[in-house]
Amino acid sequence: MEVNGKHYHTIWFEKGVVYMIDQNKLPYSFQIIQCDTWEKTAEAIRNMTVRGAGAIGAAAGFAMAQAFLQAPDPEKELYLLKAKETIENTRPTAQDLFYATAGVHSCSTAELAVERAQNLAEQNCNEARLIGLHGENLIRDGMTVLTHCNAGWLAFVDYGSALAPVYEASKKGKQITVLVDETRPRSQGARLTAWELGNENIAHYIIADNAAGYFMQQGKIQMVIVGTDRVAANGDVANKIGTLEKAILAKTFGIPFYVAAPFSTFDQNCPAGENITIEFRDPNEVLYTSGINPEGLVTEIRVASPGSAALNPAFDITPAEYITGFITSKGIIRPIASEIAGLFR
Amino acid sequence: MEVNGKHYHTIWFEKGVVYMIDQNKLPYSFQIIQCDTWEKTAEAIRNMTVRGAGAIGAAAGFAMAQAFLQAPDPEKELYLLKAKETIENTRPTAQDLFYATAGVHSCSTAELAVERAQNLAEQNCNEARLIGLHGENLIRDGMTVLTHCNAGWLAFVDYGSALAPVYEASKKGKQITVLVDETRPRSQGARLTAWELGNENIAHYIIADNAAGYFMQQGKIQMVIVGTDRVAANGDVANKIGTLEKAILAKTFGIPFYVAAPFSTFDQNCPAGENITIEFRDPNEVLYTSGINPEGLVTEIRVASPGSAALNPAFDITPAEYITGFITSKGIIRPIASEIAGLFR
Repeated sequence: MEVNGKHYHTIWFEKGVVYMIDQNKLPYSFQIIQCDTWEKTAEAIRNMTVRGAGAIGAAAGFAMAQAFLQAPDPEKELYLLKAKETIENTRPTAQDLFYATAGVHSCSTAELAVERAQNLAEQNCNEARLIGLHGENLIRDGMTVLTHCNAGWLAFVDYGSALAPVYEASKKGKQITVLVDETRPRSQGARLTAWELGNENIAHYIIADNAAGYFMQQGKIQMVIVGTDRVAANGDVANKIGTLEKAILAKTFGIPFYVAAPFSTFDQNCPAGENITIEFRDPNEVLYTSGINPEGLVTEIRVASPGSAALNPAFDITPAEYITGFITSKGIIRPIASEIAGLFR
Repeated sequence: MEVNGKHYHTIWFEKGVVYMIDQNKLPYSFQIIQCDTWEKTAEAIRNMTVRGAGAIGAAAGFAMAQAFLQAPDPEKELYLLKAKETIENTRPTAQDLFYATAGVHSCSTAELAVERAQNLAEQNCNEARLIGLHGENLIRDGMTVLTHCNAGWLAFVDYGSALAPVYEASKKGKQITVLVDETRPRSQGARLTAWELGNENIAHYIIADNAAGYFMQQGKIQMVIVGTDRVAANGDVANKIGTLEKAILAKTFGIPFYVAAPFSTFDQNCPAGENITIEFRDPNEVLYTSGINPEGLVTEIRVASPGSAALNPAFDITPAEYITGFITSKGIIRPIASEIAGLFR
C-alpha cells in the first residue's frame, strides 16, 4: 500500500538481506530496517519489529532462506535444523511461521530456498488481494465494521486479511466506517490499524476494547472482521487476545463475525483450538506503555500501580461456533471441518 | 482503609472544607486536596479528582452543603438551585450524585444541610461495611474473583462496594486472588484497584480488558463482582464501559456475576437501562494516557496514531438478565423489580 505517495510492502528480500517496516516505531516514525542474517530476522520476529500472521510467515521464510545462505558446508543439515528451531521458537502461535519454515527448509539448495521464500511472500500477497475481492461482497455501502488488532497490510506482505475487504470496498466507492479496537496491551489497533486507515483516508474511530459491546448493543456495528494466527481443522481460531470476547459479543447481538485468512494460516494438523499453544508474553507489556510525549519523543511510562503484577496471554481461542464464516482466497466458507478441508482439495 | 499505616476516608468534610484523596494523582502520589467552595468541589467531581459512585455522592452532598454556607441571603433559593444544577451536570450517570444533591437541597438551613451531607457520607460508609459482610458469604476460600474498574474504598467513603466482600473475606482468612481488569481508557483497575489491593496485601494480577474472556474460558475465574453507578427499577445496571462485555462473557461461561451497590445507587424513578443517560467523555482519554516516565515523573503520552479520532462512551448498560444478584447492605437480592422495590419497604 501507499505511504507518503510511495508503494511499500511490509517486508521484502533482496540479495540476502531482509528489509522490513519497523512496526515497533509506527505510527510515530516510518523506518525500514535491514536484517542481514537469519539471527537478526528471527530476533525481529521475536521482538515484533515485524508482526501479524502473514508478515511473520514471510519473515520466517526469508530467515530460513538466509540460514541456507549462511550455513557452513560440513555442518549444513544440523545448522539448518538449529536455525529452523530458533526461528520457530520466536512466536509459537503463528501457523504461517511454521508453514514457511517447513516449506523453505525442505529445499535442497540455497538458491531454491531463496526462490521458495520469495514465492511464499508473493503467494501471501496474492492471497490477500483475493481475500479482499471475496470479502468486499459482504460489505454494504454505509456499513460500520469493527476490527480487532491489526490484520491490515502491515500484518501481511501487502493488502492484509481483515482489512483487505475494507480497502477493496472503499476502492469501489462504498462508504465504510471502521471502529478500531485499541487492542491492549500492545495497542496494534490504535497504532497500526488506525495508521493504515488514516493513510487510506477511510473513516475510522479508535475505541477502548471495553466499548465494542456498547456499540454493538446500540446497533452501531453491522459486521466484525478479524484476522487469525492459526485455524484448527474444526474451525476454531487463535487470534489476538480479546478476539474471543468480540466473537461472543457479536453472537449475542446477532452481528456477523468473519475471520479472514490465507491458506497458510489453516493448520490441518491441528484438530481443535485446545491443541494450540497460547503465547504468554512479558507482563510489562500490560504494566508499561509507550507513545509520544509532549516534546515529540517516544517515551515508555508505567501505567499501573507500582508493585502490582500482571498476566499477559497474547492470544485466545475463539470456538468455531462463534464464527459466521472464513473469508479465504477461494471465497467465503463456513467454519466446519469439511469446508475447511475442501480448501486444500 | 489504611495508607502507610494511617486510616483514611476517601473524602471528608470539616468546617466548610471538603478534603479528598486526589485520585488523579494515584497510584503515583498520595495527596489530599482541599476544596473550600462548592464550585471547587463540583470541579473536583467533574475532573475526576474524586470518582466512583459512592465517593461522588458524598462529594456532591458536601458541595451542596457548601452552597448553603456560601449562599447570599436575598437570593438564597435561586443560588441553591443554580448550584444544584451545576453540581448535577458534572457527571450525568451517577445516581448517588442526584440522591445526595436532592437530599441536601431539601434542608431548610445551612446547619441542617451540613448535618445531612455528613449523614449521607456516614450512611455510605456503613452500607459499604454491610455490603462487605453480606458479600463475604459468596466467597469461598481459594477463589479467583474478577473485578472491573474501581469499586473499592476509593470509590466510596470507605470499604467500597465490589471490593468490600473481598476485603472482608481476606480479613476472615480466606485466600483470594483478584484478577483486575485494567479498565481502559482511564485504567482505574490498573491504577486504583491494584493500588488498593496492594495496600491490603491481597493477591492480584492486572490483566488487559481483552484477557478476561480467556481466563473465564480456561476456568480460572469463579466469580465476577463489579460496582455500579445506577440501577434501574427493572435491575438494569449502568457501570463503567466494559461491564456489559464482562457480564455477557460471564453468562456464556456460567460464572456468577454480582453487582454490589448501596441504596443510594438504586434509582426507582428510572424504569429501565434505556432511560439512563450515558456520558461520552473526551476522546483524548482514549488517545492519550499518563503514567510514570523512567525519571519518575508523571507524563502524558499519545498512544494512538496521530490524526486518528476516538469515541469514548464512559459507561454501558448491563441488562438485568446478565446479573446473578445484587449485593446490598440488606443482603443478596435477585435482579428483579419486586426484590429491588423490596429494599425500600
